Parts: sequence; structure tokens; C-alpha cells
Amino acid sequence: MSTESLSTQRRPSVCAFLALSLDGFIAGEGGDLDWLTPFSGDSPQETGYSALMASADVLLMGRNTFDVVRAFPDWPYGDKPVVVLTHRPAEPGANLSFRQGELGQVLRDLWQEGVRHLYLDGGELVRQGLQAGLVDELTLFWVPVVLGKGVSLFGGEPLPERLVPLSTAVLASGLVRVIYRPAP
Amino acid sequence: MSTESLSTQRRPSVCAFLALSLDGFIAGEGGDLDWLTPFSGDSPQETGYSALMASADVLLMGRNTFDVVRAFPDWPYGDKPVVVLTHRPAEPGANLSFRQGELGQVLRDLWQEGVRHLYLDGGELVRQGLQAGLVDELTLFWVPVVLGKGVSLFGGEPLPERLVPLSTAVLASGLVRVIYRPAP
Repeated sequence: MSTESLSTQRRPSVCAFLALSLDGFIAGEGGDLDWLTPFSGDSPQETGYSALMASADVLLMGRNTFDVVRAFPDWPYGDKPVVVLTHRPAEPGANLSFRQGELGQVLRDLWQEGVRHLYLDGGELVRQGLQAGLVDELTLFWVPVVLGKGVSLFGGEPLPERLVPLSTAVLASGLVRVIYRPAP
Repeated sequence: MSTESLSTQRRPSVCAFLALSLDGFIAGEGGDLDWLTPFSGDSPQETGYSALMASADVLLMGRNTFDVVRAFPDWPYGDKPVVVLTHRPAEPGANLSFRQGELGQVLRDLWQEGVRHLYLDGGELVRQGLQAGLVDELTLFWVPVVLGKGVSLFGGEPLPERLVPLSTAVLASGLVRVIYRPAP
């Protein structure tokens, strides 16, 4: 295999960063996020969000997440390039683009375009990435509540690989952060 | 209210201590526990099990857990008094008894009998205890696997109270231990 074809196999490093209830929901019924409000007091420095955003060349999200975020009063990502993976593209913007296709191929395309570090967001895409072994670091924030119902992160599907915890922390809000990597 | 009637309201302090998958299952389909085997290498000192058993006057479990445990080659609790809460009592033993009734009342009865610290085991009983605000300390061991299906700890029911994390630790096996107390 030539160096060039090897290079086309490469992809950016992928980090995901998600809060979930103790029973595994990233949103309540109907996508409700209000239950997260009491736990939003940690600064982006304390959660690690600042470092994640600083290291990411691109934020790649699914369409559901995009639709939630664009309904916010303010666009939260500044001029960070955002790519939305969707079969229903919307109007692109200066730092907003839409792509279709399989996650692994999109990651390889982004590598070819110079993207080296990527923040993968949205439950559906993160689950796809975990299933396909495409997530290099998974940061979970366990929210100390039990919702009973909602949008499940893992979606009732087993993961093929186990994970390895790198570190844990208790944040002032009551969130517990655990950083995982895939088992080698 | 007299001192005596106040005293009949009292109950032992209650600790629960459970391992669960990242998607919230304490056992796989059909009660399977084999998936826990790769994570059984931490010593009872490291997990905190030794301290828990040393502090507990009584181990209170449900009938399902009892049926699992009594099928083990060796009875794992030594001469620690074990009480099984069940509507289907079996043959009692020197340190084994059976009770019926509502969990809160059983705890108050045990207090009257001199029990001060209690280890509550079994998913169903722990869930009942959490729902009723009868668990004073909940130690969760997050097993770094996703099962997809199985016996859920939280059982699709919301909890009325939030929890407060006291401490976290990464164990050598890859388990992440989080100790919770109910919010004050």
C-alpha cells in the first residue's frame, strides 16, 4: 500500500463530551434539557470544555443536535467550524457546512482537508462513533439524577469494546466526570 | 410525641453497593453475571467491600439476590446475619432469616432489635430503598462496558431526590467507584 493510500485511511482524533443521567439519558422525554440546569454552574475551565474547544479544529454534530443548538438565543460556538452530518442539509454559513455519508468516510475526508482534532457531538453520532471504534476519548458527566425516561445515549445496543477510565473528578455542581479511552 | 414513639420511627443506616454497566444494568439477560468476571480482580480492601461488611450488623437482600447467592459453591457471607425480604420464605439457618413486609417497616423493626448499620443488596430492594428515601449511602461501580440489555438498576422509574457525590476512584480493574449520598 502506498503512502498516499495509507494517508487516505487516516482520520482526525475524535473526542466526545456528554452529560447523562445515572440511568443513561442525555435528554428527557421530547428532548427536554431543563433537568441539566441545576448542574450548569461549573465553568468551562472546570468541566474541560474550554480545553476541548481549544483543541478541536472542527465540531461535527448530527442534525438533531444542530436543530437544538440553532434554536438557542445565541450560537454557542463562535467562529469554530461546525460540520453537520445530515441527509437534510440546511443553509450553510461562514463556519457552518453540511455533509452526508457514513461517519468513517466523513472523518477520512476531513483528515484530507487538514482536520486533525475533532469534537463529535450528539447522542446519535457519538453512539455511531463508539459502535464503529471511531471515538478516541469519551468524557462522560454523570448527572446525579434518575430520569426514568428519555433519549438514551447507548440506545439499547451493546458496545463491541470495553472502555478504560483515565481519570475521574467530582465537580462542584455535583457532576462526576469520567474520561474514557477505548481498550487497546 | 414521646421518646419511645420517636424511637420506633428510627431505622438503621443503610448502605448499598452495586456494580452496573454504563447503560445501567446490574445483570445481563437472564441474570447473567459473567460479564463482570474481567472486573473482579480488585481486592475487597480496594473496593471497600471489607469495610462495608465490617460495619454492617446485617445484610438485607431480596429473594432474587438470595437465590443467586445460594447457588454459589460457597456461602459468601460467613457468619454475618443475613435477612431475606420475601413473600416466599425458605428454610432459615443459624445466620439466615426471612421476613415479609414493607421495607421501611422491616428497617424500623431491625432497629428495635438493635441493628444500627445495614447493607442493603439486590437491585429490586435498592431501587425500593432509593424511591422511599431509605438509602443513606449508595456506592456505584461503573463497569466500563455497554450491555444493551439486562436487568436495570433504576428500572425506568425516576428518583424523587438528587444524589450528591462524595468521592470517586478508578480501580485497577477499570471499575469507577462513585459514592453518593442523598441530597440534604
